[in-house]
Parts: sequence; structure tokens; C-alpha cells
Amino acid sequence: MVVVMGERATEEQIDAVTARLVDLGMDVHRSSGVTRTVLGVVGTGSVEPALIQMMDGVHEVMRISEPYKLAGRTFRQEDTVVKIDDVCIGGDEVVVMAGPCSAESKEQVDAAASAVKQAGAKILRGGAFKPRSSPYSFQGHGEDGLKMLRNAATKYGLKLISEVMDVSQIELIGKYCDIYQVGARNMQNFTLLRELGLVQKPVLLKRGLSATIEEWLMSAEYILSGGNSNVILCERGIRTFETATRNTFDISAIPAVRKLSHLPVVGDPSHGAGRRDMVAPMARAAVAAGADGLLIEVHCDPDHALSDGAQSMFPEQFERLMSELRIIVPAIGRDICLESKTSNN
Amino acid sequence: MVVVMGERATEEQIDAVTARLVDLGMDVHRSSGVTRTVLGVVGTGSVEPALIQMMDGVHEVMRISEPYKLAGRTFRQEDTVVKIDDVCIGGDEVVVMAGPCSAESKEQVDAAASAVKQAGAKILRGGAFKPRSSPYSFQGHGEDGLKMLRNAATKYGLKLISEVMDVSQIELIGKYCDIYQVGARNMQNFTLLRELGLVQKPVLLKRGLSATIEEWLMSAEYILSGGNSNVILCERGIRTFETATRNTFDISAIPAVRKLSHLPVVGDPSHGAGRRDMVAPMARAAVAAGADGLLIEVHCDPDHALSDGAQSMFPEQFERLMSELRIIVPAIGRDICLESKTSNN
Amino acid sequence: MVVVMGERATEEQIDAVTARLVDLGMDVHRSSGVTRTVLGVVGTGSVEPALIQMMDGVHEVMRISEPYKLAGRTFRQEDTVVKIDDVCIGGDEVVVMAGPCSAESKEQVDAAASAVKQAGAKILRGGAFKPRSSPYSFQGHGEDGLKMLRNAATKYGLKLISEVMDVSQIELIGKYCDIYQVGARNMQNFTLLRELGLVQKPVLLKRGLSATIEEWLMSAEYILSGGNSNVILCERGIRTFETATRNTFDISAIPAVRKLSHLPVVGDPSHGAGRRDMVAPMARAAVAAGADGLLIEVHCDPDHALSDGAQSMFPEQFERLMSELRIIVPAIGRDICLESKTSNN
Amino acid sequence: MVVVMGERATEEQIDAVTARLVDLGMDVHRSSGVTRTVLGVVGTGSVEPALIQMMDGVHEVMRISEPYKLAGRTFRQEDTVVKIDDVCIGGDEVVVMAGPCSAESKEQVDAAASAVKQAGAKILRGGAFKPRSSPYSFQGHGEDGLKMLRNAATKYGLKLISEVMDVSQIELIGKYCDIYQVGARNMQNFTLLRELGLVQKPVLLKRGLSATIEEWLMSAEYILSGGNSNVILCERGIRTFETATRNTFDISAIPAVRKLSHLPVVGDPSHGAGRRDMVAPMARAAVAAGADGLLIEVHCDPDHALSDGAQSMFPEQFERLMSELRIIVPAIGRDICLESKTSNN
Repeated sequence: MVVVMGERATEEQIDAVTARLVDLGMDVHRSSGVTRTVLGVVGTGSVEPALIQMMDGVHEVMRISEPYKLAGRTFRQEDTVVKIDDVCIGGDEVVVMAGPCSAESKEQVDAAASAVKQAGAKILRGGAFKPRSSPYSFQGHGEDGLKMLRNAATKYGLKLISEVMDVSQIELIGKYCDIYQVGARNMQNFTLLRELGLVQKPVLLKRGLSATIEEWLMSAEYILSGGNSNVILCERGIRTFETATRNTFDISAIPAVRKLSHLPVVGDPSHGAGRRDMVAPMARAAVAAGADGLLIEVHCDPDHALSDGAQSMFPEQFERLMSELRIIVPAIGRDICLESKTSNN
Repeated sequence: MVVVMGERATEEQIDAVTARLVDLGMDVHRSSGVTRTVLGVVGTGSVEPALIQMMDGVHEVMRISEPYKLAGRTFRQEDTVVKIDDVCIGGDEVVVMAGPCSAESKEQVDAAASAVKQAGAKILRGGAFKPRSSPYSFQGHGEDGLKMLRNAATKYGLKLISEVMDVSQIELIGKYCDIYQVGARNMQNFTLLRELGLVQKPVLLKRGLSATIEEWLMSAEYILSGGNSNVILCERGIRTFETATRNTFDISAIPAVRKLSHLPVVGDPSHGAGRRDMVAPMARAAVAAGADGLLIEVHCDPDHALSDGAQSMFPEQFERLMSELRIIVPAIGRDICLESKTSNN
Repeated sequence: MVVVMGERATEEQIDAVTARLVDLGMDVHRSSGVTRTVLGVVGTGSVEPALIQMMDGVHEVMRISEPYKLAGRTFRQEDTVVKIDDVCIGGDEVVVMAGPCSAESKEQVDAAASAVKQAGAKILRGGAFKPRSSPYSFQGHGEDGLKMLRNAATKYGLKLISEVMDVSQIELIGKYCDIYQVGARNMQNFTLLRELGLVQKPVLLKRGLSATIEEWLMSAEYILSGGNSNVILCERGIRTFETATRNTFDISAIPAVRKLSHLPVVGDPSHGAGRRDMVAPMARAAVAAGADGLLIEVHCDPDHALSDGAQSMFPEQFERLMSELRIIVPAIGRDICLESKTSNN
Repeated sequence: MVVVMGERATEEQIDAVTARLVDLGMDVHRSSGVTRTVLGVVGTGSVEPALIQMMDGVHEVMRISEPYKLAGRTFRQEDTVVKIDDVCIGGDEVVVMAGPCSAESKEQVDAAASAVKQAGAKILRGGAFKPRSSPYSFQGHGEDGLKMLRNAATKYGLKLISEVMDVSQIELIGKYCDIYQVGARNMQNFTLLRELGLVQKPVLLKRGLSATIEEWLMSAEYILSGGNSNVILCERGIRTFETATRNTFDISAIPAVRKLSHLPVVGDPSHGAGRRDMVAPMARAAVAAGADGLLIEVHCDPDHALSDGAQSMFPEQFERLMSELRIIVPAIGRDICLESKTSNN
């Protein structure tokens, strides 16, 4: 921590700040210049910067370390690769997770799983518990939905990811899924994060709508510090003043987070764009910017989807997107799954 | 709902949209002008606007009703007054809730309760379970903290409000507190909101950091639709690009929400400002803008507080603020609790 | 400036950074701790922090001085009071500037001036050159408008403020007005600011829609550094994700800017709220938060105003607001102009 | 325009709104449902929606047309291609404009021009008049800078783009440049836009830091309505709460604007990212999302650049980026200039 004293700070004020810091278990190195005094503060104690900021004569207090440890590049320089059997997220391959917003019926889930497998997805996505902003909207089929998803995933040789909204759902979802998804609205549900630190399966952590990258990494830290090192970050759009798109898909967060953290980061262009016709451009852009994977909503009949129909791709759109991505990935030195030659097996 | 067709929309496109809406159980009234056709859509069915938006020839789809019902002025015109015995929130009196960020010790809670009571607060605030962005920060004293708070509240004749972070804490907190507080990070923890709809005690619902007023009212709807009509809204600052203040305390939300909803709305200038020296101006402003109450952090020794010390007021600052508020309230036709003549009883 | 080296920074990297800084004319004080090295950088040279940030081994570069000088409290501790004859902005009195958005006709301007004078305004506001986001909207009456405004101001003993949009208008507007107003969209029109540094009349500088407080003060610095020390800052709302109000009137900027700068700061609740029914609450809030004055749109027939009618107050609303403000100002130790006993003279 | 009356609106209120609209020259079509009445409003008159919004009984007023005309797809369906001799922006080819932030010296400009030409750029960028947020920063070399740029552009067979900050600079810059650049801070300098509507050369219009897409297109409308149809839009990052990047490069604006407008749109990843190491990922992403071109800062010695050094690419980085873009463009059915075999001298 660095404490910059004001230009008019008195010796008494400087001494008071120094004393307070020493009292908190810190070492203080004073450096006085022509116009101001700067205090370098190190040590094993813990100091809330805002408290020092309030003291008389203090101009500014600046943290010099990130508040996260396990999530940062300083702790671990090489990229983390999250493995689910033979599927590796964060390695050379761009991994695509696709499927319906929610599991609606056996047939709907099967059709979507078949389509995304054929086009080259490796992981099936689908919700059984849905966080909806209205209490009057469809809330998901619960365990029945999980069964539909698991059956389809197994049938087509896909891994499965599904959202967990509450501590009470962890055990149930763990019986069916390979990856837990934490939604944007729960990014700071610390009780949930703490429990997910104790499970063995990977967790995909979406960025909150107004979360800074630092807060996002702090939430990852909750999971990592519990002992679960398999965290996948997912950018899904932030809230800005712009209303032409539902959210502003913050693609710059992808290279920014890769610089700060060793964790893999994927993009969710479906929520990032909120409109089917903008999913493909945003998906291409995320991969071109270095994303380790994508999370995409695909539905065989999106016009009748019970949720998120407007942002779900038709299977043929998804297939075309996958072809475009196959052209793009060599530009960033990566590869991506080829299309399955035959569909249902 | 109103569907505005594009200027170049064909008859076939207009027919397709009409058919789709009728199929969804709606009545459609067509009105054709020189340059465009507009479809008025009414009925008891449920239509996701984004789905129609995607159809060919559609220029724009506009909702004409708010998505919330019970929280809106259309449902209930007169102001809701939340009563806890003789304390009324949403009536003529501006009600002040004050106390420490977290319960740290019996002495600290007692001193704060005594001070805020004497200055004119009616409700004691204090946390026993703390949502912290770092897993390494102080997380609260749990039930021990609740006991300290309850004892002090009872001793000084104050009501008690404390934060609930998870469904599993509802019962415990309900044993000690008069009002449940839902924090900004949990504003869209729908599992929690749903359960709070089933309890009998009032719930103070803070606005999320990037929540629109509409989303905030939708979250209130979750609680109201469960049967609990005692919801108090609390503005606590939104996230913007400005970094000179921790958050941007959105005072304009106070009159805006009062126009849309019958629920009482209070302001939390401590979190809204994030700096002790800005709490008083923001508190005065919130009351001048029409807030039904305030939630303020007060600590007898904020420099040694385990959390939020930098934004906690000293008792004497709080007392001065209360005097200022007594000058202001007549300007908006309200009153506020007088200072207690003697302190400890 | 403080340069924090990364935990894994090598001696070579530290030396390279040091050499580069010395090369740029700076003195470097090195302080090495257990985990990192911090370089304190002082001197008369000029260094772009981002350049050093890019160097290998650098973790973070932190500025320790504000980029503005003349606008800051460090340069001048006592409050600046801008005087136009006997009207003082930034002193004990809260000064209200009111009038129509634009000068439309002799009668309209006269009626508004009469009304605001009677209610206690000291300065007449009104536009002759209007910045409109559409090229097809009313653009103002130019010099004719200025004449109408000047005549009415003189008749009722009011000072006059009007907006300048371009360097070419400075001379003309200066013939009629007492204060130049620079609109939010021109806050970073540096050519205009530079020229206004050379005039003798006060300049009211509105904050840009997405300007940080620091940028706002930097724009003030352009005017101050040219030799014109009479700058009045004006908060008028920032752009956020919230759409229930046109802008988010950032009242917290008022105490924040007063802490950083000696310049007077006023609030413009008309633009801040964008809706007539929210102007009074926002005006009361701004004054309660410590604003030195207000800028308010008042129109005798707002339904037929050529611009901004929806946010213009009726004279009787403005009069009621002034009465409310008279109740509030003692709470912050200030006063405000009393109502004129008689109207038209 | 559609006026939605409140559920409790009276007949008198509906009549008053209708009368007001007719009075303003509009035709009103009334449609009454079970819960509410909706008024469809068409005609050649002009109505400020906010004014009707204020009337008693009105629930909401919704515009059904965009406020821009010439800039919209309704006015012109096919893409506009801006041609400067044989360089076409908005056609099949992705056009890259590159060069230094500002012209510093003959040698510096020549070296940059040579490098970007060789790597495949078609247009040289460089500033002679610089908008700087500090009055104490380097403000550009003016006409001398323009001469350096023109000479280098001509020598290497490049077109030239440079920024115009004020009406007074239009003539001078026009003597040297092929495209006028309007910076983000001047996006709503309406006096400047109006004058640029009268010139014959293309104008590249950057999006303001907090401008909505609609406002951006309205600013384009100012230029188009003056008679200059050669407008190129340029996304360069918007301001959000995130501080890890200088701006949030809003790549989703690229497909969004292409849907609303026929004008070509390019991306400026240098300003969008603000950090050299993020320029390449953001440039690739913009092209993958469908941008018609790029504007990139390249400097042969960025460490000693007088402005924007930290975000300027080294020539070899730029060359590598161009190679990556050559891999990506076929994915979106476009092409891009090949590398020059020899460097033209």
C-alpha cells in the first residue's frame, strides 16, 4: 500500500498516519520530496485502505497488490486447463458448449443435443432451474429437466453443464452434470460460491452485469480458496447506457482477464447480444479476441421456446457459425472440433 | 403490446405476425397509416416481446404495461405504510435506522444503540452475517451478533433490522429481528426472495448495483406475490463510470419510484457515498427528495471498525445530521423523531 | 508518480524503468520490500504514466497528483466567489438562475423574467443558440433572442446567462450577457474553452454527460489557465443504465467537487431530471447537498414551449419550490433571496 | 407515435390528449381495450413526445420512427460505399487506416507511412491538431504537421485522414487530407457537423464516449442533411464502470449499426483498448464482427511518442496483425489488402 500525503500535510499528521499503520502491524517507509511525502507500507497485517484515506492530511491511498491471490497470474503463471475426461478448456482447442436455454421436453432436448453435436459442440448446455426476473415466468422443470439433459448428453457423447441457483441444489445437480454454471445474478452469492469451493466438479462462473473484472476474480477466489481449482470464467455482457443491444458484450474483458488470471475464459454471445442475428458476429469476435470457448443457446424451434427464444440460434445458423470459426481459429494459433460426419451416433 | 411494422413490411409479413399473435391467445387490432402499419395487441395470453421482434417486417415491439403488478400504483394507489408496532415507515414521519455495519462486541453494539437512540433513530441496524467481496475478510459473528443486537435494541427501545444472505438464515434471523434486510448483491437471489414472501416480517429490499428501477420492483413482486406485503425499498447507490465516489447515490430514483410504486422507499447514504464526509450531504439530499427514511452506519470508534469504518459516522456527526434533518422535513410536509432528552433509557 | 514493479520483476527490468525515468528528467527513489520493489518518482519532467505501464516487469503506475492545478484546492484553499456586481455565487447565499429554455418571443421572455424575479431568482437564463441533437429541431433565434433576454433582464433587475456553442459566438453573446454558459456537449470543446479563458466575464461550465469529475476540472483548467478565474461548475446529470429518468442527476458530485476544488458548483435539476414533476425534489436535494446555486427552466406556457417544455416548471411551481428552499437553507448555514413583495418592477 | 393512456384515465383526459395532438397537426386513431385506451398518432406535424407524456392520464408515449432519416436503412437499403479514388470503404474489402497518433517530425511520419503501407494499409492516419484533456499537453504541429503527413501519404501511395476540431480548421485541413476525422469529443459539436455537411470530402465520425447509437446516427444526419453523403462511422469505445481497460470497446455496436444504417462502420481498437497489447485482439474481434475497416495507431518508436505512445503498435506488431486479419476475412466473405512485396523506396 502507498499512502500519499497532501502537499499541506503537517508533521503531526504524517506521524499520526505512520503510528496508525504500525499499530495495525505494518512497516512504513517514508520518502519525502519537495512537494509531498509518500509512505510505502508493507507487512503482514491487514489494513482497510479507506480507513487511512479518512485520516487528516492524507491525499490518497493506493493498493499495490490485487486483493485476489489464487486467481492471479502472480500465484500461477501457466494457464489453467480444466479437464472433463478428454475435453480440455483452456488448452489449444476452442471448446463450444451449446444447447437450449431450458430443458422443455425429452424431444426438444434430444433434437438440440443431436444438432449441436453434429456441428461440433463438445458440451451440452441447458437449464433445469431458471432464474427469471418475473415470478410469473417459467421457472424450469427441476430434476425432470436434469434427467432429460443427462440422457441426451450421454446419448450423443457430450459433457453437460447446467445452472445452480442455490446451495440446496448443489447435490442434485451434481448427480447429473459435469460442470456447474453460476449465473450473473449469483456472481456475488457468497454462500453459494463457498459451497462450490468444496465440490470436485468444475464451476463456470459468469460475470455479473455490473461486476468489475477484479470483483469477478474475487468471486472466483471464493471457489478456489475452498479447494476447487477448476473454475472457468464466462463473460456474458455488462450493463451500460446503450439500449440498442440488451447488454454490452465486453469482449475486451477476454484479453484483459487472460492477462490478470490463469483461469480459462469463455464468452456467452447469446446473453451478450440478446438477439439471434447478433450472436454469430459476437461469437466470431470473442474467439478472434482469444476466448477459450463459447456458450451458445441453440433451439430447434426457438419461436416456441419457453425462455430466451429470441436469442437462440437455429441449428443451421449454429452450423454455419461453427464453419466460420474453423476459418478464424488458425489466426490465433488454435483449433476447434470438426463437424461430425454423421449425426445420431 | 404494440407491434410497429417496418415501412417496407409486406402484407404477408403483417399477416404472419398477426397469425402468430392470435395463435398465442391475443387479440390484434390493425391500424394502417400512410407509411406504416401498427398492430395493437391485447388479451390474456402471454407473449415474449423479443420473439415477435425477431419476425420479418417487424420494426419494433413495445410493451404498454409494466411487468410488475402488485408493486405498482395501478394495483394500489394509496401509499403502503409498513408498521412495526408504533413505528410507521411510509407515513408522515421520516424514520431513521442507524447503527454499526456489523455487530463486533456487546460493548460496541450497546454504545452505538445508545447513541443513535438519543439522537432520534427509531430502528437499530447491524449485521451478523456479512457479504464480503473477499473470502479473507471478516464474515460476521452469526447468532452471537444477533443476540448482541437484540439485547441492545430492546434495552434502548429500538426496533431491529439485520441482513439475511441465504434461505438457511431466515429462521434464525427471524427470532431476533423485526425487519429482514436483503442486500444489493442478493436483489435477484430469487430463491431467497421467494422464501421471504412467506414470512410475516417486513423486508427491506436494497436496489442492486446495476438494477433498473423496473427490475427492483420486479424483485419486490417476488416477495409481494408470496403474500408478504410489507416491503420497504432502499436506494443505496448504483455503479457508473465515476470513480471519485464509490457509487453514484441515485437520489432521482426516490421520486421516480414513488411515482411508479406505493411501497415506501428509504435511502442508504452510507453505502451510496462510501465516505464518512459525504454521508451527511447525501442524507439531507435524500430526505429533501422525499425519502421515507434513512439507513445510516454509525460507530463509536469507526477507526477500529471491522468493516465499513470509513463510511461510518461518529455519534456526534450523526446527532448533528439529525438536527439538520429536523430543519429540512417541514419543507416537504413531514416530521421526524425528536432527540431523546436523556440517553440511557 | 509511483511505479510498482511486479513480484517477479528482475533487476534488469527495474534498472530499465529507472533509466527511462531519469532520461525523462525525473528523480527516482527505490524502495525494495520482501515481495516487491516500489519506485517513487518526482521531478519537473513530464511522464505519460501509460508509457511506463507498458514496460516489462511493471505491475502498476500510479499518479500521485491531480492533473489540474489552478482548479484544485491545493492551489487555492479558500472558496472562489464569482461576483457579478452585487450577485455573489459561491458565498453565503444560494443563487437561483431561472427562465425559459430558449427565448421564443418578447412576451414569453418578459413573462418568465417577471415570474422568476418575483419568486426570488437573481439571474435570468435563456438560450438564443440551441444545441439540438436533431438538425431538424428549432435552433434558436440568435441575436434577436439575445436582445429579448437582455431587455427583460434589465427591466426586472436580473443578471443574464446564455449559452455559447462556438468561438464565433463569443463576441456577440458577450455584448448581451453577464455569464457565458458552456453546455455539456461542449465540455471538451477545447478550442472554445481556450478562447473563454481570454474573456473577462464568468463562465458556467456544465459537466459532460459522461465526464468524470477530474475531466470536468481539467476543462475548467483550460479556462483558468487562460487567465479567466471566474468559472462556475454546473452538475446536470450523467448517463447511466437507468432509463426511468432521462439522466442520473449526480448529486454526490456536489460535495465531491467542493472537496477537490475551490470553484463554486451549482445544480441544474431541469436537465438532471428531464421531467417537470421531478425538478422540485432534485432542486431541494441539490441545495441540501450543498450546491451554491441552481439553474432552473421556468416557462409560463410550457405546453407550447419550442424546446424542453416537458422539463420546464410553471411559475407557481417555481414559487413553491423557492419557499421550500427557504426552509431548507438554514440547515446548511446559508440563506437565499426572499420573494419580491411586488411583481413587475 | 403511440400514446398509451393509463388504466384509470378518464374520458376527459383522453379527449384532452386527442385535442392537443390534433391541434399540433396530427391525426389520431383511438383504440379502446378492456383495460386501456391506446392512441395511434400519425401526420406531418411535429410533436415532442415528452410534452404529451406530461399530460394527465397518460401512461406512456412511444415513438415509432427513428428520429434520423437519411442515415437509416429505411431511407436507403443498400450499403453506402465511400470512395476515395480506388479505395472503397464499405465494400468487399476491409480497409485499414494506420499511422501515428500525431505528426511529430518528417522522419517519424515517413517511417510510419512506409511501415503501414508495406503491411497493407491503404490510408495514412495522423493528427496535426490534437484535442487534449490537459491544456498543458502537446497540442499538435498544425499546418506543418499536415504537410509532413501529405508528403508521406503521397510518397507511399496512401490516402490521408486527419482530425478537424473546429470550423476554422476545415479549409486548411481540406487542402491536405482526403478524409476529415471528427473526434469523439466533437460528436455533438453541431456547428462543426453542419459545416462538414457542406464540404465534398468524406467525414469519419467517431462515436462519443457516452453516445447512444441513435445519437451517433443523428450526428451523421447533421452531415448528410447538409448534402455530404460520404460519412464513415467509427466505433472507438464507450465509457462504462470497468476500469481495467481505458474504455469498453463496444464491438456489438458494429453489427447493431449495420442493421440500422447503410453507412460504413469501422473500428478504432487503439482508443477502444488504450493499451498496445490489447489492440490486436480487439482489431481481430472488430473485423470478425463485420467492421468495414480499422483505424490503428502505429509508431516506429512509441516509447518516445508525444501522445498515445502506450496504445501505438510497433510496425512488426502491426504487420503480424495484418497477417492474422488475412486469415480471418474469408470467414465473413471479405478480403483485405495484401502485404506490399517491396516497401516503395
